[in-house]
Amino acid sequence: MPRFKAIIQYDGTNYAGFQIQKNGRTIQEELEKTLKKLNSGTRVTIHPSGRTDAGVHAVGQVIHFDMLHPRDAEKLRYALDTQTPHDINITSVEEVDEMFHARYMSTEKTYHYRVDRSPTKSPFKRLYTSHYQYDLDLDVMREAAKDIVGTHDFSIFCATGSSVEDKTRTVYEVRIEEQPDHELLFIFRGNGFLYKMVRMLVGTLLKIGGGRLPQDAIQRALESQDKKMTGPTAHPQGLYLMEVKYDKPLD
Amino acid sequence: MPRFKAIIQYDGTNYAGFQIQKNGRTIQEELEKTLKKLNSGTRVTIHPSGRTDAGVHAVGQVIHFDMLHPRDAEKLRYALDTQTPHDINITSVEEVDEMFHARYMSTEKTYHYRVDRSPTKSPFKRLYTSHYQYDLDLDVMREAAKDIVGTHDFSIFCATGSSVEDKTRTVYEVRIEEQPDHELLFIFRGNGFLYKMVRMLVGTLLKIGGGRLPQDAIQRALESQDKKMTGPTAHPQGLYLMEVKYDKPLD
Repeated sequence: MPRFKAIIQYDGTNYAGFQIQKNGRTIQEELEKTLKKLNSGTRVTIHPSGRTDAGVHAVGQVIHFDMLHPRDAEKLRYALDTQTPHDINITSVEEVDEMFHARYMSTEKTYHYRVDRSPTKSPFKRLYTSHYQYDLDLDVMREAAKDIVGTHDFSIFCATGSSVEDKTRTVYEVRIEEQPDHELLFIFRGNGFLYKMVRMLVGTLLKIGGGRLPQDAIQRALESQDKKMTGPTAHPQGLYLMEVKYDKPLD
Repeated sequence: MPRFKAIIQYDGTNYAGFQIQKNGRTIQEELEKTLKKLNSGTRVTIHPSGRTDAGVHAVGQVIHFDMLHPRDAEKLRYALDTQTPHDINITSVEEVDEMFHARYMSTEKTYHYRVDRSPTKSPFKRLYTSHYQYDLDLDVMREAAKDIVGTHDFSIFCATGSSVEDKTRTVYEVRIEEQPDHELLFIFRGNGFLYKMVRMLVGTLLKIGGGRLPQDAIQRALESQDKKMTGPTAHPQGLYLMEVKYDKPLD
């Protein structure tokens, strides 16, 4: 059966997350419903590079799936794009080797986290940023962010409910950029991230920036696995899965 | 009774427009519901600078209303802001002379219209721009836009259903700007605009830019009132009421 890799975007606002579940609409459900119609009524199972939570967005999520019959990739992209709801966009579809796996073979992921620092909460940003109106010391936050980079056991920054056993991850880069219109952009790049890890790191960095945790809180949290050295989990609506990389094409 | 002027923002996505109506939630309804609670249970009627349609947004809509008792303006703003839904934002509240009228005394309005020209429709822009993927000749559109400026009888650019008798308006400026991320921004500034006038003008300019109407179509439409010289009404989600000006403060 031919295997396809697709890059997709979605506005996570109206979804209960990526993965199919009993209560609430999900991205997977919408995509599989459409793919089934395009696959002569036979069910198609979608495998994402990783799940995203309710309210979390994606600009470059990667999925793979198998179809019964060969298909022209661009025609498949167009059919999938036009037949899924407007808040899901199919950026590209390509046929790949049957050994390709969107989750197990990913080598790098980039997440963005947008914080709106306007004095009042904008109605246009409420679903796409997290609002934070207090003072922040960006220099202190940038110093603290350096402690995230490298290979660490990130168990303390993993929410309960994860079934992953090995909680060691390598973070290549953490950048904090000031953007126009009172926005702060956090950029995380690494070989993988644990359940809610980015949001817990952002929550901790904001608490450090506001002076309510010491500058070396992240280093101490990683060393001692002490929960008191971490901040709250930042809201889902600021988070974007931007890009997933694979070492080399297999096809 | 003290009169208050307020500047408000709203994301029009989840509303059936500004004005109270039988079917569907409206901005006016939400604001009046909250104001009634803040006014000892007595109904407060809101007067906007003008109505906006379903899906249309506002960054600087102006309203006025009367309260039974004197109030601290900033405390009133805060109460109104926090007790209305997240997609409505109260930017400012000030007490004004009892002769002030948000609609009759406005002297200038600015509207923006955002067009997304990306090859594919972005899930993040679907509610905040109108998508247009075809080629456009911006020079021709900018020439055509000059025919809008000035004092004209704009009846041909007024949707049916308007009860306004005098359809003469003065447009001070029409600008078409290229923005980052494949966006086109239309800026309209005038002493007032008729029902759906901005959206009909944008629809006509796009049709001119696409070569499906002559460059002088607007001039001919205004002269002959010929409907064939106009384009379709552009979608509501690209439209923003940006600012309403009043000659001088009365208080």
